[in-house]
Amino acid sequence: MQIVMIQDKFVPIEEVEPVYLDRGMFFGDGVYEVMRSYDGKLFAFEEHMERFAQSLAGIQIAGVDLDQVRARIHRAFEAAGIANAAVYFHITRGSAPRERVWSDDLVPNFFLSVSELKDNTEMKARGIAVSTYPDCRWKRCDIKSLNLLPNVMACTDAAKKGCGEAVFVDEAGLITEGAGSAFFAIRGRTLQTAPLSANILPSITRKFTIEAGRRVGLKIVEKSLTPDQAVASDELCVASTSKDVLAVVKFDDKVIGDGKPGDYTKRMAEEFRSFVA
Amino acid sequence: MQIVMIQDKFVPIEEVEPVYLDRGMFFGDGVYEVMRSYDGKLFAFEEHMERFAQSLAGIQIAGVDLDQVRARIHRAFEAAGIANAAVYFHITRGSAPRERVWSDDLVPNFFLSVSELKDNTEMKARGIAVSTYPDCRWKRCDIKSLNLLPNVMACTDAAKKGCGEAVFVDEAGLITEGAGSAFFAIRGRTLQTAPLSANILPSITRKFTIEAGRRVGLKIVEKSLTPDQAVASDELCVASTSKDVLAVVKFDDKVIGDGKPGDYTKRMAEEFRSFVA
Repeated sequence: MQIVMIQDKFVPIEEVEPVYLDRGMFFGDGVYEVMRSYDGKLFAFEEHMERFAQSLAGIQIAGVDLDQVRARIHRAFEAAGIANAAVYFHITRGSAPRERVWSDDLVPNFFLSVSELKDNTEMKARGIAVSTYPDCRWKRCDIKSLNLLPNVMACTDAAKKGCGEAVFVDEAGLITEGAGSAFFAIRGRTLQTAPLSANILPSITRKFTIEAGRRVGLKIVEKSLTPDQAVASDELCVASTSKDVLAVVKFDDKVIGDGKPGDYTKRMAEEFRSFVA
Repeated sequence: MQIVMIQDKFVPIEEVEPVYLDRGMFFGDGVYEVMRSYDGKLFAFEEHMERFAQSLAGIQIAGVDLDQVRARIHRAFEAAGIANAAVYFHITRGSAPRERVWSDDLVPNFFLSVSELKDNTEMKARGIAVSTYPDCRWKRCDIKSLNLLPNVMACTDAAKKGCGEAVFVDEAGLITEGAGSAFFAIRGRTLQTAPLSANILPSITRKFTIEAGRRVGLKIVEKSLTPDQAVASDELCVASTSKDVLAVVKFDDKVIGDGKPGDYTKRMAEEFRSFVA
């Protein structure tokens, strides 16, 4: 590389900061996690670390010291001193002049941020509307990678429509998951959600939501739903790290149930609270 | 955002450089182009600018002054003074604390580099081997976005096998394109390549290669091939900005023709030279 230009300025090669040559930027060549704390305690810490390790392995980023990552998370979380915090972190393969084929001697880059989670009591009480989008994502959504363009496109469009989440529907006409959440339907006494084989993230909140469903007496069915089946369900909800169990009261402009968060959803959200205490 | 940690250091929020909060990094939320020069002259400049405009529109990045981009490219290219250069540039949606839904007031970020293209005379004389991979990419490969993880995974694996390119095969068992190139087969007197509807990039080099094929007397067929059909072809080649027409002499370990670049491929590469003069 001979010349680098950042915005409208030339930067001498030897002065270009490595972050500008980060493969995370050129290719989305990295993986991330988001964990949260409840009342000063990080929730499901090791589950997130385990999935992070799987994501790293999934894209063959080797040589990451996970204990060092653990220590950094704790250090940053403590320094932030936020009771209800979202901790985001990513590791990219490293910085180098842009070339698709990577070199094995790259040193991974680490970035972390701690933010305060906004109170979402009102959103939880009201529930959200969702809108569907064709699931045009890649076929390795089990890896929590930095390739998130379809997610941001769908989410932003949904937000413009007044929706709180975008829900993906695959080529077979089946709901996979939300752009940033797992998707659930309550039909009679069953809690239904797509199986992990449906090209979805092995969501940790999904796992806890399933457990919450079990505890409130629902039978668990891991089978993908169509949008029609979703609309005809008694209740719908999505689950994510930052918002846990959140009722869906409108699906593509169709009102679900009486348009208010359903009983099972509320009970599952309560059960969830017991996990995080 | 209250705390940011880069590698193992805390950085005060007000001192975090915007590049660390670039949506290009968090989401691959940006688009790019690569153009090249032959003997001091940028090739197919406006074609690349037109496609760049389409990519920007494809992901709804608005308000980019393309004339300013044109001026920056020329300025950098001239400053570099490299006769045979690759000019890479990308624009991301901008920098902001990480949130999927973007705000319309973001200011896009621009990055550009100029590099010297290595001489590939020997590679061209010998041809390359290619290896196939399931095409697990997203369904908007017509957009030249920064979501390139499947491409880098496939390319790197191919390189480890001694191959010069990875070739994607979709779920229907049809070849789409190379991870960084268009793919062609010469069968009798026809030049066959996947149609633009096959979720491939509207490659500019593909367009010129098709024209080169026409000029050497080949009939053009835009229809996807199976790997078996590829192996049974008289000649294979890939085409990309940085390497133009490059013979494929081995496909998944099967030798194509006599294992040397074929006559039509060589003649097409010669024709290509006439476009860039």
